[in-house]
Amino acid sequence: MSRPKNDSFLRALLREPTPHTPIWIMRQAGRYLAEYNQTRARAGDFMSLCRSPDLATEVTLQPLARFPLDAAILFSDILTIPDAMGLGLSFAEGEGPRFERPLRDEWEINDLTAPDPWDHLRYVMDACAQIRKALDNSVPLIGFSGSPFTLACYMIEGKGGTDFERVKQMLYARPDLLHKILDVNARAVSAYLNAQIESGAQAVMVFDTWGGALSEAAYAEFSLAYIEQVVSQVTRTRDGERIPVIVFTKGGGVWLEKIAAIGCDAVGLDWTVDIGSARARIGKKVALQGNLDPAILLSSPEVIRREAAKVLASYGSGSGHVFNLGHGVSRFTPPENVAALVDAVHELSREYH
Amino acid sequence: MSRPKNDSFLRALLREPTPHTPIWIMRQAGRYLAEYNQTRARAGDFMSLCRSPDLATEVTLQPLARFPLDAAILFSDILTIPDAMGLGLSFAEGEGPRFERPLRDEWEINDLTAPDPWDHLRYVMDACAQIRKALDNSVPLIGFSGSPFTLACYMIEGKGGTDFERVKQMLYARPDLLHKILDVNARAVSAYLNAQIESGAQAVMVFDTWGGALSEAAYAEFSLAYIEQVVSQVTRTRDGERIPVIVFTKGGGVWLEKIAAIGCDAVGLDWTVDIGSARARIGKKVALQGNLDPAILLSSPEVIRREAAKVLASYGSGSGHVFNLGHGVSRFTPPENVAALVDAVHELSREYH
Repeated sequence: MSRPKNDSFLRALLREPTPHTPIWIMRQAGRYLAEYNQTRARAGDFMSLCRSPDLATEVTLQPLARFPLDAAILFSDILTIPDAMGLGLSFAEGEGPRFERPLRDEWEINDLTAPDPWDHLRYVMDACAQIRKALDNSVPLIGFSGSPFTLACYMIEGKGGTDFERVKQMLYARPDLLHKILDVNARAVSAYLNAQIESGAQAVMVFDTWGGALSEAAYAEFSLAYIEQVVSQVTRTRDGERIPVIVFTKGGGVWLEKIAAIGCDAVGLDWTVDIGSARARIGKKVALQGNLDPAILLSSPEVIRREAAKVLASYGSGSGHVFNLGHGVSRFTPPENVAALVDAVHELSREYH
Repeated sequence: MSRPKNDSFLRALLREPTPHTPIWIMRQAGRYLAEYNQTRARAGDFMSLCRSPDLATEVTLQPLARFPLDAAILFSDILTIPDAMGLGLSFAEGEGPRFERPLRDEWEINDLTAPDPWDHLRYVMDACAQIRKALDNSVPLIGFSGSPFTLACYMIEGKGGTDFERVKQMLYARPDLLHKILDVNARAVSAYLNAQIESGAQAVMVFDTWGGALSEAAYAEFSLAYIEQVVSQVTRTRDGERIPVIVFTKGGGVWLEKIAAIGCDAVGLDWTVDIGSARARIGKKVALQGNLDPAILLSSPEVIRREAAKVLASYGSGSGHVFNLGHGVSRFTPPENVAALVDAVHELSREYH
């Protein structure tokens, strides 16, 4: 195995020189692409799409066929682990993910075990291997998982985007129970990411979508500590190549110094932080990934070019920046605006390298 | 007019010595109180409750009858201004506020004018005067408004809590139009707060509920600049007493230095920031208000006491702290837990004064 032909993404994560700033886009294989919607319709529902290595490979490659993106990301969901634990993941039309059997009783928590990724999550490993083969060493493949805390939110609430009143009640009244869940989750996430790496993932990202809903002290104890555990257990070298780890806590801008200190190679930024300020705070320690507001992709190519230029200028000269949005791309984004962004980043970033 | 008998809230905002840390609670007159629900049922709908000075006075006083809170806050809504502009505010059962006629066309924006608070918002001024009279100088009365940007979000989207895709499209593609709206809003908010002060409000607070959804640069230009304009135009002395101004941007933890620099007396904090770190960053310039996670009030008196103690200890010794939640109290909060919080703060804070 050697580095892919276009290794700018991996080099930027390791803060090695690159000819331009690499870019990929969170949720780049998604509903803003007509071809994705067609494949999804063929699959039936979202989880059938995730569970089919053929179809997951097909949609992973779709955005790369349209845009000269510098990385591919495994097509899957952040909630495959609790689904493999037997909680019954489903996606109702027009709603977010739901679990049929959220954790409600203490015995359910005591019974929780980390699923063997080679058994219950084999379909993800098959997809990784198949995508790597299809990519034919053109660009690197990113593997990923939800963070232990983010998984716990869904496992306890049964869904996302609430006020997290159940999770927080447990956190404050029965921290021992939440720690139990998080410990199982951290072991499950580590094993899952390592299986993805063994199946071909060349970098991995931990998505901490809901850690930002916590207080600073609770974040450190219940989210970041378990991400740190995962980071410490992830395989960092395979076939002589370093496997970079990216950690992204949405809403974590105040805590960047703490996130950068857990041993990851890169920190993802949402759009509320100025990337230049973030670089001044933690740029000597880690690479940065981000952070254009996804809403900007709803405007025009001219505006996108202007705003992308601002992010590049704010980061400034030198390596260590992977361009991305600050959150997933909106389903209402015109694909030609994504094309404009990718071109703008490649073209305008040359002067900084 | 003299200072109220219990002036600890005003003194803390001005960083003068107090015997204990004062406390009030965002949305303290609200649905977690049975007596509030009874009054609201009598009023019919939420806006009728706001529009009746008698009923607004009644619900403003309800939490003070239960708990030894150190301030009263005018019972009203942050969206009275756009309602007075003719956009048609309503509250459907179980949903947030909605406007029947959000701003959709350029001519509507050009036609927008700041309402005269003594005319279209007279009911708010009548409520202020009546509440002040009913308080009989026991504790101070807080007046408030939504921030110019937060009002604009509702005026453009027609509702809150979305991805703000319309607002952001305007912000990036037609910033001139958004600036027009914000300029009218800033003048409207200033006049509105000044009329509240003239009617008896002894401190005022600007709620910037949605500024935290912006990028750092967009926040500075489209939210903070207009809050600064408001702060500079608010009456700061009345009858020889200083009128403190509190600015609260939910999700604004990364930007505290900038917020503290606009001339306000105090900065509100949500629960994601450690208040001790916030004090180290801006505590020499302004007082701080906050910042217990409202979800903690769903637990038990013991947990509440422990967590309140942590916030007090993190702020540390000396004046300049007004205890509050980091956001409004949840409707599911048992009132006895609020009692436990108020008692804990009064009792445990003495050692720091």
